[in-house]
Amino acid sequence: MDDGTKKVVTQRLASAAGHIKGIERMVNDDTYCIDVIKQIQAVQAALSKVSTIILDNHLQTCVTTAIQGDDPEERQRILHEVTGVFDMKNKIS
Amino acid sequence: MDDGTKKVVTQRLASAAGHIKGIERMVNDDTYCIDVIKQIQAVQAALSKVSTIILDNHLQTCVTTAIQGDDPEERQRILHEVTGVFDMKNKIS
Amino acid sequence: MDDGTKKVVTQRLASAAGHIKGIERMVNDDTYCIDVIKQIQAVQAALSKVSTIILDNHLQTCVTTAIQGDDPEERQRILHEVTGVFDMKNKIS
Amino acid sequence: MDDGTKKVVTQRLASAAGHIKGIERMVNDDTYCIDVIKQIQAVQAALSKVSTIILDNHLQTCVTTAIQGDDPEERQRILHEVTGVFDMKNKIS
Repeated sequence: MDDGTKKVVTQRLASAAGHIKGIERMVNDDTYCIDVIKQIQAVQAALSKVSTIILDNHLQTCVTTAIQGDDPEERQRILHEVTGVFDMKNKIS
Repeated sequence: MDDGTKKVVTQRLASAAGHIKGIERMVNDDTYCIDVIKQIQAVQAALSKVSTIILDNHLQTCVTTAIQGDDPEERQRILHEVTGVFDMKNKIS
Repeated sequence: MDDGTKKVVTQRLASAAGHIKGIERMVNDDTYCIDVIKQIQAVQAALSKVSTIILDNHLQTCVTTAIQGDDPEERQRILHEVTGVFDMKNKIS
Repeated sequence: MDDGTKKVVTQRLASAAGHIKGIERMVNDDTYCIDVIKQIQAVQAALSKVSTIILDNHLQTCVTTAIQGDDPEERQRILHEVTGVFDMKNKIS
């Protein structure tokens, strides 16, 4: 990951962790269930955004290097990894 | 939220926050992008599980009380809230 | 499902099926892959909307009847079903 | 899309369309709401699988060609498209 991306990603992750600590407090303060679920969904959306930023950087760097390289097996491997994280989205949300 | 649910939920949220702090360290240690994305997806799945636990409790308590109550508008309102969080899942993951 | 909901739901399902037949033609006409994927995602979003409509009706009818009824086991069962479809959303998209 | 992929994709799309027609009949036959929702979720999962197959083919062909090509703007454009469909998954399911 390049330095700019790394900085953006760690800031967003720190913010997501802070958000979750806030949700813990909401639960302890007996906040209404539906409002708690909405906050959890907001964190999940923020994390999806972080994944997209990392993937974008990954495509521009590692994937580009592998595809321009001479090793067809490495090329296959790295492309299947991308398909893999795309497919995994089908199992989470 | 009843006390048992509250305990389970806050423990799982604390664990998710800790997981995210670990992912921050992974990023700073230059862990491979795809592995970082997989960890983020694992946290998202864990958070979905927390939402499900909270919803289950909400249905057994608040929703049940409202539906057994005498106020048809309150009944409508509380059921639409449930549909709302279900629908929101279409916009996140 | 009440008659109004049934009509809306079958119309939307017919429309989704028609949309998919259109995507089949797009594939046979060598439409650009990314555009095909976007159309598939549009169908998935339309299907999510149908599920939300059905769930809303289910909550207003069957779930309300069960919760107002005298059988605590039936109540539990029907509420767990709702949690079940919510949870399943974590595994698809 | 290469011919093998095109065949697999159109078959799976035809099967998804048929599945939806079956769900329409289920609704007309007053099938229990929750069972209808589960079938809709099954179609959505099948469609996600189709998207993954198309994306895999797209990465192996168009994306690989663009990245090995001489046009840096075209490279950027095609990689952003991939990020775009990944990101869109956050809005559907």
